[in-house]
Amino acid sequence: MIEALAWIGLVAFAISGATAAAQARLDIVGFALVAVVTGFGGGTLRDLVLGIRPVNWVEHPAGLWLCAATGIICFIFERGLQHRRLNQLLPWADALGLAAFTVLGTEIALRTGTGPFIAILMGVATATIGGLARDVLCNQVPMVLRKEIYALAAALGAATYVATLAVGLPQPAAATMGFVAALTLRAAAIALRLSLPTARSSRR
Amino acid sequence: MIEALAWIGLVAFAISGATAAAQARLDIVGFALVAVVTGFGGGTLRDLVLGIRPVNWVEHPAGLWLCAATGIICFIFERGLQHRRLNQLLPWADALGLAAFTVLGTEIALRTGTGPFIAILMGVATATIGGLARDVLCNQVPMVLRKEIYALAAALGAATYVATLAVGLPQPAAATMGFVAALTLRAAAIALRLSLPTARSSRR
Amino acid sequence: MIEALAWIGLVAFAISGATAAAQARLDIVGFALVAVVTGFGGGTLRDLVLGIRPVNWVEHPAGLWLCAATGIICFIFERGLQHRRLNQLLPWADALGLAAFTVLGTEIALRTGTGPFIAILMGVATATIGGLARDVLCNQVPMVLRKEIYALAAALGAATYVATLAVGLPQPAAATMGFVAALTLRAAAIALRLSLPTARSSRR
Repeated sequence: MIEALAWIGLVAFAISGATAAAQARLDIVGFALVAVVTGFGGGTLRDLVLGIRPVNWVEHPAGLWLCAATGIICFIFERGLQHRRLNQLLPWADALGLAAFTVLGTEIALRTGTGPFIAILMGVATATIGGLARDVLCNQVPMVLRKEIYALAAALGAATYVATLAVGLPQPAAATMGFVAALTLRAAAIALRLSLPTARSSRR
Repeated sequence: MIEALAWIGLVAFAISGATAAAQARLDIVGFALVAVVTGFGGGTLRDLVLGIRPVNWVEHPAGLWLCAATGIICFIFERGLQHRRLNQLLPWADALGLAAFTVLGTEIALRTGTGPFIAILMGVATATIGGLARDVLCNQVPMVLRKEIYALAAALGAATYVATLAVGLPQPAAATMGFVAALTLRAAAIALRLSLPTARSSRR
Repeated sequence: MIEALAWIGLVAFAISGATAAAQARLDIVGFALVAVVTGFGGGTLRDLVLGIRPVNWVEHPAGLWLCAATGIICFIFERGLQHRRLNQLLPWADALGLAAFTVLGTEIALRTGTGPFIAILMGVATATIGGLARDVLCNQVPMVLRKEIYALAAALGAATYVATLAVGLPQPAAATMGFVAALTLRAAAIALRLSLPTARSSRR
């Protein structure tokens, strides 16, 4: 089930990449590349850091082509990205992706034998680094550093997963609880427009 | 022959790095570093992703010093970078580098046993990621995402190389065809000022 | 001793990350993440490139949490970052970190059996890439490319270390000389406001 949600999340991440590409006025190749980077940036860094090689998508490139195709479709129907309906749906699909990627990333780190803290960090990285790379490529200060409860929702989900596993829950139950924790906090942040306070002063 | 062209391309990439460094008003160390990153960023990411370790230049650092020296020479003769003659030559040298790096990167990926699609992607990455990192460092939206037929020329060259190999051509002939395909499309784009359409609207 | 100075340097790097985060008006998660990236970006890239896996902090995450905690403390006491006393101290603590990270990074590269030039480059990378990533995340042209004698001080320290080792000095003496060389040049640059000339012209 988490796998299925990861595919939905992948498409949501690819669409968010295409949305950023539209704002930066990129061409069709730029749409495809930013969509791929948004979907796979987090997992790639995780695999590099943990020493998993080659990185996941070298042997299973299907998701890569899904992201690229999503980017290209978004370019072709670009005005559609402005449609109010899609803009309302996108954050919720993205939240599903965030929650699924968090649990998947944590699980993969645990399987390589890392400690719980690094596993949580890898869960957060898997869910957020793609969006961070998307914003760097489009020459923006990354949203994950700046706005809304995003990395924090991933951290809560990953910590819940690790803690419930440690307490002895079977893996599928623990994964579900981690997924629900991340999704609930992120959904609450979207619905209630919660955000963390930012730095008050600007200097120099 | 491809190897020889790769050296020409390396110098062209280093000069394009120095040109970007001049626009961002960097110091001499910045010129050298951006020149190195432009020349080696693509190959480094390719090696990391494929799990080739240590990455290529750790054991063969000659090209690294060539890039750094090129950056330093460009700093010293900086006004020369504006000379009309050089500005006319640069895109053509860069096109040679693009085509050579594409074939080399594809070849290296194939040698590690990846499938054809990943090999093509690695060829494109080898040829384009250096320029992308150059633009990120100099705080620009990367040119490869935004303008002209650049990544597409690399993709055509890599695909031609993989396809002609698959059809049974000997490796040198296939490499030459890939090289010529990438170079021809890129040269046509420069000469005819072709570019892909970009996103029409800008929002938020 | 170098180890102890590396911890001081790590905190100084984390504070410089938090200072950049304050200027970019990030939230508390952004402060923590930029502090971690500033402290560990250089060592992470070094380990990836040399093929050390998993990268150092996966097995020894204590420094990671120190950086994150420093970032969070800086967020809470954010106005404190403006205090004149701290602003005067910071560059000197940062210089200690620069010198310690340079020697450590060079040493780690030598231990993996790289040649002297790559070892020097890895020393420079360990000391400077974290600050470079900090500036890219905060959407600035990286300071290391643009201002002051920073990478050059690291290069001098790493070269001194490698050269004194080659001449036959025992490791602790060589490390101390490398450390002192980097620190002296960087301190002189701070105290005397030395900087390298930047590119004179701006074009396009």
